Amino acid sequence: MLPSMTTFDLLLPEDTLRHPDSAKWKFYPDDVLPLWVADMDFAVAPAILAALQERLTRGLGYAPFEVEATPLAPLLREKLATQGLADLPTGGLRTLPGVVPGLYAAVAGLSSPGDEILTMTPIYPPFLGSIRDQGRTLRAVPLLQQEDGWQIDWDALEAAVSPATRVLMLCHPHNPTGRVWTTEELKRLGEFVLRHRLWVISDELHADLSFGGPHVAFASVHPELLQRTVTLTGPCKTYNTAGLGIGAMISHNVALLDRITALTRGVQGHPSALSITMWIAALEGGAEWLAAVLAQLRSNRDHLSARLRQELPWVRFSPPEATYLALLDFRQHPRSADIQQFLLTEAKVGLNDGPPFGEGYQGFVRLNFATSPELLDEAINRIVRAVTQSE
Amino acid sequence: MLPSMTTFDLLLPEDTLRHPDSAKWKFYPDDVLPLWVADMDFAVAPAILAALQERLTRGLGYAPFEVEATPLAPLLREKLATQGLADLPTGGLRTLPGVVPGLYAAVAGLSSPGDEILTMTPIYPPFLGSIRDQGRTLRAVPLLQQEDGWQIDWDALEAAVSPATRVLMLCHPHNPTGRVWTTEELKRLGEFVLRHRLWVISDELHADLSFGGPHVAFASVHPELLQRTVTLTGPCKTYNTAGLGIGAMISHNVALLDRITALTRGVQGHPSALSITMWIAALEGGAEWLAAVLAQLRSNRDHLSARLRQELPWVRFSPPEATYLALLDFRQHPRSADIQQFLLTEAKVGLNDGPPFGEGYQGFVRLNFATSPELLDEAINRIVRAVTQSE
Repeated sequence: MLPSMTTFDLLLPEDTLRHPDSAKWKFYPDDVLPLWVADMDFAVAPAILAALQERLTRGLGYAPFEVEATPLAPLLREKLATQGLADLPTGGLRTLPGVVPGLYAAVAGLSSPGDEILTMTPIYPPFLGSIRDQGRTLRAVPLLQQEDGWQIDWDALEAAVSPATRVLMLCHPHNPTGRVWTTEELKRLGEFVLRHRLWVISDELHADLSFGGPHVAFASVHPELLQRTVTLTGPCKTYNTAGLGIGAMISHNVALLDRITALTRGVQGHPSALSITMWIAALEGGAEWLAAVLAQLRSNRDHLSARLRQELPWVRFSPPEATYLALLDFRQHPRSADIQQFLLTEAKVGLNDGPPFGEGYQGFVRLNFATSPELLDEAINRIVRAVTQSE
Repeated sequence: MLPSMTTFDLLLPEDTLRHPDSAKWKFYPDDVLPLWVADMDFAVAPAILAALQERLTRGLGYAPFEVEATPLAPLLREKLATQGLADLPTGGLRTLPGVVPGLYAAVAGLSSPGDEILTMTPIYPPFLGSIRDQGRTLRAVPLLQQEDGWQIDWDALEAAVSPATRVLMLCHPHNPTGRVWTTEELKRLGEFVLRHRLWVISDELHADLSFGGPHVAFASVHPELLQRTVTLTGPCKTYNTAGLGIGAMISHNVALLDRITALTRGVQGHPSALSITMWIAALEGGAEWLAAVLAQLRSNRDHLSARLRQELPWVRFSPPEATYLALLDFRQHPRSADIQQFLLTEAKVGLNDGPPFGEGYQGFVRLNFATSPELLDEAINRIVRAVTQSE
């Protein structure tokens, strides 16, 4: 049984959450609260639902083959301009089946087997997969876990560069730490990139889920970076539509995108017509829903932070500046060697385990707080109880 | 203006057809009747629309990551069993973004750059793209254009094999000729394949659009072929849902599929949750709609054949045994060197041009007859008038 949630408008009804369609809710047994994979437990924005329903009144044949021939292109250009990516040239915008296929494609296109690729860990696991699965060499630069949050280790970054280094893979905002890199940090990263003549793959999927000011695209902080960066984005995290996978690969350097898409021509297919409809509707009419979601996520984040500080002060945790993902450091716990499994079986809370985010993250778990305050409280209760009983 | 079409239930309304969503209808100017890309001008099956509408009452987050965890897997297994592909092992079924991504992935997985790949032309252009774009060598074996229809040139097939030949790419039913290979032909092809120890990529996307008996899968005609064949299928042609791209790659040889998907891991993304819903609904409740569509397509085919024989007897044409595509040989026409352009500008009918289907098909056009009888008649009128005036 889930706690009562009638006062919370955004949450999907319980029978809907638990439907077999939902990977998040059906992966673990029914007595587990699933706070893992990056879905929100919220209903889709009314503007998106209305657009999808309207779209079903027409045929479902081939949509225009080029994104430039759809209303998505001008809407996305307009949005990117607010992030510092104005005047995107024709050909500077390509659709993707999702951001992960973009990571893989960009790694394939911008490096050769054996080349070295830099990224800062802990990191969203497909970053590591896109490097390893394609025979590139990972140069992982761990972030520093400091009192004021996760910080870039500039010395380690510098030391990790070799003549074989070709690419920096950036996650901004950063999954799983929730860091939003400041403009100062982005500029310093930019200088680093230009000095070493690297390409940059910048995953900016969580740009609209920031609790701070407007998003500043990495490529925007120096004109030369516009020529060295492929930015990846998509609507699926912000608007909770991961099931309708779609994304975009963006660059002011059209030749760079040509190089990448030459390798994926024919392999990736075209985005679903309904996914295009969804993205257009999100950009046109999703703002009100998103504001409500962000307010709820901020409140959830603050509540989670307060309870952890109060009840489990030994769990190290830096409140995220963006995303609905919290990386919790349970290394002080006696069961840190299998903490995800411990919390699953003893607390009945399903979290993401640390090790897939990089070497050195055993003892960490990632908690998805995009749920109702009641469910979040119940999950924290369960965790606190299990952890306390075992002490 | 389109002719009146109120008596025809399957056709989409004119304003819907001409909506900017439709690549088929918006590619050419408004005064052109578009009978080109393989969409039908028909509304989607009521069972599919109902299922999509119902699906929108739930969240749109991640669907189960493995097809085996969805109701699609048993439905598809049941269907494949009726085509001779019973007892598909676990892991013998993988989803795809569409059949074209399957062609590309299978070519990449089953051959190396420089290897030779056989296929029979004229052929659906992505067959040729999947070979050329990936640095394989095309061995095109032209079909014989005989009085009794398009036939396999067995001697040429045999002569095209070299020690570097690795794969036969088969299209069954065959796009663009509409041939359904007989069981006898499939067996003879199977012997050829086994004798030369080839892999087979068998595109069976049009299996359910046959005007003859039930579909016989190529791999089913000899037990050893089950181990040598990757079969590609999908719902999008049969159910007119190309905008919701999804397909499947099937083999009794799981190691073969593993070899292919090792190369596409991460690159192709996951199928849209709504595309999975669509396919399930099609298999569960699409039969009545499909029977009506097939009856209409057969009637359209017969009408097209009768009018061509009567009014343009010099246009060579073998009525297709499957599909809604007719390959017309206009090589007797004085403008055969640019016949597609001639029919576009003079008849205002938009068709697919022959050359992308292989070397030697200048003077051919592919006509899509999946429209209302009225529109089909109007298109034939326009073609006959243009061709007659120019004589």
